[in-house]
Amino acid sequence: MATEMILKGIGSFFNDMIPLHQHIGLRVTDFDTERVEIRFSFDDKLVGNMTQQILHGGVTSTAMDVAGGLMAIASVIEKMEDLNDLAILQKRLAKVGTVNLRVDYLRPGRGKEFIVTAKVIRSGNKVAVTSMEMHNEEEIHIAFGTGTYLIG
Amino acid sequence: MATEMILKGIGSFFNDMIPLHQHIGLRVTDFDTERVEIRFSFDDKLVGNMTQQILHGGVTSTAMDVAGGLMAIASVIEKMEDLNDLAILQKRLAKVGTVNLRVDYLRPGRGKEFIVTAKVIRSGNKVAVTSMEMHNEEEIHIAFGTGTYLIG
Amino acid sequence: MATEMILKGIGSFFNDMIPLHQHIGLRVTDFDTERVEIRFSFDDKLVGNMTQQILHGGVTSTAMDVAGGLMAIASVIEKMEDLNDLAILQKRLAKVGTVNLRVDYLRPGRGKEFIVTAKVIRSGNKVAVTSMEMHNEEEIHIAFGTGTYLIG
Amino acid sequence: MATEMILKGIGSFFNDMIPLHQHIGLRVTDFDTERVEIRFSFDDKLVGNMTQQILHGGVTSTAMDVAGGLMAIASVIEKMEDLNDLAILQKRLAKVGTVNLRVDYLRPGRGKEFIVTAKVIRSGNKVAVTSMEMHNEEEIHIAFGTGTYLIG
Repeated sequence: MATEMILKGIGSFFNDMIPLHQHIGLRVTDFDTERVEIRFSFDDKLVGNMTQQILHGGVTSTAMDVAGGLMAIASVIEKMEDLNDLAILQKRLAKVGTVNLRVDYLRPGRGKEFIVTAKVIRSGNKVAVTSMEMHNEEEIHIAFGTGTYLIG
Repeated sequence: MATEMILKGIGSFFNDMIPLHQHIGLRVTDFDTERVEIRFSFDDKLVGNMTQQILHGGVTSTAMDVAGGLMAIASVIEKMEDLNDLAILQKRLAKVGTVNLRVDYLRPGRGKEFIVTAKVIRSGNKVAVTSMEMHNEEEIHIAFGTGTYLIG
Repeated sequence: MATEMILKGIGSFFNDMIPLHQHIGLRVTDFDTERVEIRFSFDDKLVGNMTQQILHGGVTSTAMDVAGGLMAIASVIEKMEDLNDLAILQKRLAKVGTVNLRVDYLRPGRGKEFIVTAKVIRSGNKVAVTSMEMHNEEEIHIAFGTGTYLIG
Repeated sequence: MATEMILKGIGSFFNDMIPLHQHIGLRVTDFDTERVEIRFSFDDKLVGNMTQQILHGGVTSTAMDVAGGLMAIASVIEKMEDLNDLAILQKRLAKVGTVNLRVDYLRPGRGKEFIVTAKVIRSGNKVAVTSMEMHNEEEIHIAFGTGTYLIG
C-alpha cells in the first residue's frame, strides 16, 4: 500500500473517530511525510475567556499535540520497509506516544479559523522531535510548539 | 473581601462558566494560595486512543494549564494590598496569561478519575512559574508539568 | 547612535568580556535585529564524552542561551525610540534575563566548528520568545532550542 | 559489583575526568539511586553579568543537565540484573543521552556555593524523566529544571 493512502486513512480516522477532535472541530486538511496541516473554526464552546472571546489555551495545546503526533506517525511510516503488513504497521503505530510537549503562547487566540502546521525536526530510532505553529486566518502567529514523541 | 472568598468565586467561575471545562467535566475541588486541586472523571468523549481507552493528551495538557493558571491567579491575589476594589482586581486578573507550558507524559492516561494539583514555584513581579502533577485515583503518576504565566 | 553600532558593541562585549564565552571560544560572528550567529570550534576541553569526542550538552545549552539572549537584547534595542541616552539603554538591558530555556538535543555534538543561530519568534511588551539552532560545519543539525526572555 | 560502588565510580569519573566539570568546579557530593547532589562554588570565571556578579545561565543549565544525566544513569544501573559484566554496563551507559532539557531561571544566580539536586520522576524502558533544582548556600531557590534522557 502506498504511503500516501495510509496517511490519508490516518487523517480520516483522526477527523472522524476521535471524540475530542470532533468536539473541537479539528480537521486534518493536508498530510504528507513533509508536513501536516490541521484546521478548526472559532466557536463559543472553545473559549477560555468569555469577555475577550479568546481561545482556551487547552484547545491550542491539543491541536499542537495532534499535529506533532501525526508527523511522528508519518516518520514511522516513512521508515517502514513493508507497508503491506497492516498488523505490523498497527503494532508500530500503537507504540507512538507523546513524551513531552512545549507550547509557547505568543498572542491571544483570536480569529475565525485556526491553522496548525507541524514538521519533523529530527526522527531517530527511538524518538522524533517536531515543531508546530498555529496561525489564524489573517496569518497572525498565535502559538509555537515543540514536541517529543516515542516512535520505536 | 477575604482572599478565601475570592478564590472560591474564581473556582466556581472556572467550574460553571467555561464551556471547555464543562465538556471535560473539570471541577476545582480545592483552591487556596498554597495549592489547587482539579478533578475530572474518565469518559469516552475524552479518549484519544479508543482501543486502549487512554485519555487524549490534549485533555491532560488542558487540565495542567488550568491548574497552573489558577495558581498564577492566586499569586496575583496574594500580592494585592486592597482586595475590595473589584475593578482593579478584575483588571489585574485580565492580564494573567500562559507564556508557555511544558507537559511530560509519564504513563498512559488510564483510570476512573484524574486529580491534577499545582503549586507556585516562583512568583516574581512579572512572571510566575508553576509545577503541576496529574495522578489517577490509584495514585499512579500520569503527567508532570511546568508552566510560566505573565502576572503583571 | 545607530542600532547597528550598538549591536556591534554588545557583540564585542560578549566576545571579550565574559569569561565563560572566552573559555568556550564563543564568538558572535553576525548580529543584527533579524538574527544572530555565534561560532565556536571543537576543543578537548568542551567534551562531555571523552571516548566518543562529543561536545558536552552544557556547552550546547550555553551557546543556545547566549544566542537567544542576544536576540532578546536586539528586540529591546529595536523598540527604543532614543538610542542616544546610554544610561536608559543600559538600564533597560540590565533587566533582560532568561525566564526559561528548552534545548532539544537532536544528534551527538560532533564536528570541527559549531554554528548557533537565533531569531525572535515574538517580542511583546514584557517577554520575548526566541528560536535557536545549532549546526556543525557540515550543516548537520545538532540541536534546537526555544527561549523565553524577560525584556521589560 | 554493588550498585553503590558503581555509582561512586561514576561520580568520581564525572568529578575528575570531564574537563568542563573541572573548569566549573562541579563536584558530585552525594549519589545514590534516589537522588544526586552536585556542588560548585561561585567564581569570577563563571559570571555572566560582571557588574552584578551573577552566574552565567549556561553554568546553571550545565549543572542541571549533569545532575539529571546522573540520575538517568542511576536508573539504568538500578534496572540491570547483572552488574558484574562491565562490558554490558559500559555499552548500556554509552547509550544514555539527553533528549531535551528545560531550565526555569527563578532568581539571579547569586551566592557563594550552589547546590544542584536531581531525582527521577519516571523511568520507563526507553526514556527517563528527571526533575532538578538549584539552590544557593542560603537555600534560595535559583533554578528549576526538567530533563528527558534516552536510557535504552
